[in-house]
Amino acid sequence: MTIALIYAEQKRNLSAIETQLEKALKAPHPILHEASLDLLKAGGKRIRPLLTLLTAQYGEPKRPEVICSAVSLELIHMASLVHDDVIDDSDIRRGKPTVKSKWDNRVAMYTGDYMFAKAIEILSTFDSPAAHRIISKVIRDLSIGEINQIRDLYNWKQNLRCYLLRIKRKTAILMALSCQLGALAAGCTYPLSRKLYYYGYFLGMSYQITDDILDFVGDEKQLGKPAGSDLRNGNITLPTYYALKQKELRRSIIDVLESEESSDADWRKVINLIKTSGAVERAANLSRRYLQKAKDILNELPQKKVTRSLQEIADFIGSRNY
Amino acid sequence: MTIALIYAEQKRNLSAIETQLEKALKAPHPILHEASLDLLKAGGKRIRPLLTLLTAQYGEPKRPEVICSAVSLELIHMASLVHDDVIDDSDIRRGKPTVKSKWDNRVAMYTGDYMFAKAIEILSTFDSPAAHRIISKVIRDLSIGEINQIRDLYNWKQNLRCYLLRIKRKTAILMALSCQLGALAAGCTYPLSRKLYYYGYFLGMSYQITDDILDFVGDEKQLGKPAGSDLRNGNITLPTYYALKQKELRRSIIDVLESEESSDADWRKVINLIKTSGAVERAANLSRRYLQKAKDILNELPQKKVTRSLQEIADFIGSRNY
Repeated sequence: MTIALIYAEQKRNLSAIETQLEKALKAPHPILHEASLDLLKAGGKRIRPLLTLLTAQYGEPKRPEVICSAVSLELIHMASLVHDDVIDDSDIRRGKPTVKSKWDNRVAMYTGDYMFAKAIEILSTFDSPAAHRIISKVIRDLSIGEINQIRDLYNWKQNLRCYLLRIKRKTAILMALSCQLGALAAGCTYPLSRKLYYYGYFLGMSYQITDDILDFVGDEKQLGKPAGSDLRNGNITLPTYYALKQKELRRSIIDVLESEESSDADWRKVINLIKTSGAVERAANLSRRYLQKAKDILNELPQKKVTRSLQEIADFIGSRNY
Repeated sequence: MTIALIYAEQKRNLSAIETQLEKALKAPHPILHEASLDLLKAGGKRIRPLLTLLTAQYGEPKRPEVICSAVSLELIHMASLVHDDVIDDSDIRRGKPTVKSKWDNRVAMYTGDYMFAKAIEILSTFDSPAAHRIISKVIRDLSIGEINQIRDLYNWKQNLRCYLLRIKRKTAILMALSCQLGALAAGCTYPLSRKLYYYGYFLGMSYQITDDILDFVGDEKQLGKPAGSDLRNGNITLPTYYALKQKELRRSIIDVLESEESSDADWRKVINLIKTSGAVERAANLSRRYLQKAKDILNELPQKKVTRSLQEIADFIGSRNY
C-alpha cells in the first residue's frame, strides 16, 4: 500500500470534499471568494481530510457525517492559514512585502472569521455536541498556540516544554482531532477514537518538528523563502533550541537575535552555524521518536487494512523533504 | 416598568452572565486575559444578554440553556469588538494612534478567535444544532458585514440598500438572534422565536442608525472621538447618504472624500454642512420607522408582562443620546 494508492482509493471522497470546500467559499461575496480561492487552488496535500477519511474506516465510513467533519476541519485549517497572513505594524516597519493592498489585513482577518463560521455551520448539520466541542477546542488551541508563538518571539530563554506545547497547539491538536472526529463521525466507540487522537497527535508533533527542520535545511526554492526564515522572524524552533544548548554557539545566536541591526550576512552565518552543529540531527531524532509513538499506537488498534494505511502515512510523513 | 426596573429584575441573571463571561476569559492565558479584561470591565449596557433573558420569558426562563445562550452571544459581540481593533497598514500610514505595542494587531485577532471558540464551546454544552446554526450565522454575517464596510469605504456612489444591508449584518442580526435564541433556549415554538427575531432585527436597525446619527451630533466627550469620525474614516453612513442626495452639498462632500489632502478644517466644514442639511432628521425618521416596526411585532405576541418590558426597551433605544 503506497501513499499514492491510499490517495487513489480515497479519490472519490477527496473530490467530494473539494467540491464542498469550493461550495462553502463560493457563493456569498466576491472579495471573500477571491481571498479564499487562491488558497483553495493551492490545494496542498489535504493530509487532514485524508486522516479523517481513513480513521472513519474503523466504523461506518459511508455516513454523511464523515465528509462533513473532514470539510469542517479543513476549513478551520484554511482559516488559520488566512489568519497567519494578518500582520503586525512591526512587520511593516521591518519592511516586509507581505501586504498586497491597503485592505489586505482586515479582509484577511474577516475572511478567516467567515471560514470559521462556515466550519461550524457545516458541522451543525449533524447533531453532535461532542463534534462542536472538538471544533471549538481546535479553534481555541490554534489561537492560544499563535498567541504563545507571538509571546515567545526572540525569547532565547524559553525551555523545551514551551516549544513542544506551542507546536502541539499550532499543529498537533488539529491532526489529532482530524483522526478522532473521523472515528466519531463513523460511529466508533469513544475509547477507539481516543487512541486515534493520540496517533494523530504524535504524527502532528513529528510533522511540525520536520517542518521546523526543513526551514533550515530545505531547498530555498521549494520552501519559497530563504533558509532560516523562522529564526529571522524571531521564531525559536527546535534546531535553534538545541543549538542554544551548545556553549560555543549560544553567544552568537543570542547576539544576532538581540541586535536590532543584524544584517543578512549575520543571519546567514548563524543559520549555517546551527545547520552544522548537530542540532538538526537531534531535532530529527525527536521527530522520529514521535513518529515511533504514533506507530506504537497503531499496534493497539484493530488490525485492519486501514491500519496499514495509517502506518504508511506515518512513514510518508517521516520521509518527506518538502 | 422603567428600564431601570427591567435591569433590576434581571439583576441576578445578569450577574450570573457576568460571572460566566469572566470565567470564560480568565483561566487560560495571561496575554489573552489582559487583552480581554479591559473589555469585560468596560461592561457596557449588556443589551444583548438582556434581550435574551427577556425573550426567554415567553417560555421557561429558568432553563440553564438561557444563560448559556446569552453568554455565548455576548462573547461573540465582544470578539467582534476585539477584531474591530485590528487595523490595516493603511491606518498606520495615516498615523492613527491605535497601536499600543508591536504585538497588538495579531494578539487582538487571536484573542477574538479565542472568544469565538469559547462561545461555541459554551453553547456545545447543550444539544441543539439549531443553536449552532444560529451562532455560525452571527459570526458569518458579522464578517461579511465588516468586509462590505471595507469594500464600501470612501465610495459615495453606494445606494441605500448597500448601507442597510451592511448595518443589518454588522448590528441587527446579532440583536435579532439574541432575541430568537432566548426564546428557543427557553423551549418556545419556532414561529414565536421568529417573531422575536424580527423584533430584534428592527430594534437593531434602529439602534445602528441612531449610532450613526450620534457620530455626527453626539457630544464629543461622551463619544470619546471627534464628531463625524465615521465620515473621516471613509465610512458613509445614513446622514451622509442623505446629504449626498442634495445637489448643493454633493460636490463638497465628494471633494473632501476624494482628496488625499483634506485638512481637519475641510472635514469640519463638510461635517457641519451635513449636520445642518436636514439629513440627520431624515435619518432619525428612518430610525423611528424601524422602531415602530419593532413595536408592531410586539402586538402580535402574547401580551405578557415581558411584552411591556420589550416595549420599554424599544422606547429606551429610541430615546438614547449617547
